[in-house]
Amino acid sequence: MPDESPIQMREARREDVAAIVRLLADDPLGAGREQVSDPPPSSYFEAFEKIAADPRNLLMVARDAAGAVVGALQLTFIPGLSNQGAELALLEAVRVDARLRGQGVGAGMVTWAMEEARRRGCRNMELMSHASRSDAQRFYTRLGFAGSHVGMKRAL
Amino acid sequence: MPDESPIQMREARREDVAAIVRLLADDPLGAGREQVSDPPPSSYFEAFEKIAADPRNLLMVARDAAGAVVGALQLTFIPGLSNQGAELALLEAVRVDARLRGQGVGAGMVTWAMEEARRRGCRNMELMSHASRSDAQRFYTRLGFAGSHVGMKRAL
Repeated sequence: MPDESPIQMREARREDVAAIVRLLADDPLGAGREQVSDPPPSSYFEAFEKIAADPRNLLMVARDAAGAVVGALQLTFIPGLSNQGAELALLEAVRVDARLRGQGVGAGMVTWAMEEARRRGCRNMELMSHASRSDAQRFYTRLGFAGSHVGMKRAL
Repeated sequence: MPDESPIQMREARREDVAAIVRLLADDPLGAGREQVSDPPPSSYFEAFEKIAADPRNLLMVARDAAGAVVGALQLTFIPGLSNQGAELALLEAVRVDARLRGQGVGAGMVTWAMEEARRRGCRNMELMSHASRSDAQRFYTRLGFAGSHVGMKRAL
């Protein structure tokens, strides 16, 4: 069935946390800031529970035909006065299993996220990508994003 | 009293919405996307009610000694698995009355936001600034932010 997406999206469950943490850590930037153990440190589960309890935060996993978690992303729906009170969709922590890059998994995930944000009435989607991730920026440009902003960050 | 801040921060109230919309519209980018009327269109009040009802979104106004609204900002506290489950603070829609620029109002507002985010346990603060706002980027650099990311956006 050539029309069928190679992945299925569903909301993350507690039992997906370890797989998501592995995806976050399997990355040049993530390796230095995540802690992979079995089971993962409790701080990850506490964060998962906060996300699961918040209707404006959606943590999603992409699963392959065998049900394995091969990607993850988070969507945050932000109410605001700007743009005549339109809700904004923020896309974060988009990760695809390194073994499956270039097979349309990421595009399927982000396309799903855009449809979900549209369905919820958002008029814009934003994301921040580390300046070193030029591949990611080309990927998002192909999906219609423009690098119109400077993303600024500081530790607190 | 030279130690006293020139501004006082407090959570925005329904009666501040018109002043905040004027601040958003008084801007080269905002002028094209906001609608200023008296009273403002109902979409702004609907957005205000959503923010006021959401414990993870904080819309703040800065007031001068006479109680006039001279600035506004929004803080969103985003739970996430990244960074070992640390909560992220997103700073948005920072605006200062054009007549008061360069008097420390913006610095006072952002410093307040950083303290509030720290108090709530956030380890990082992020923001996106349109590439054309080079003054804003210099301002945030002075406050310790680094333009380490590309901010990408698309309409839905």
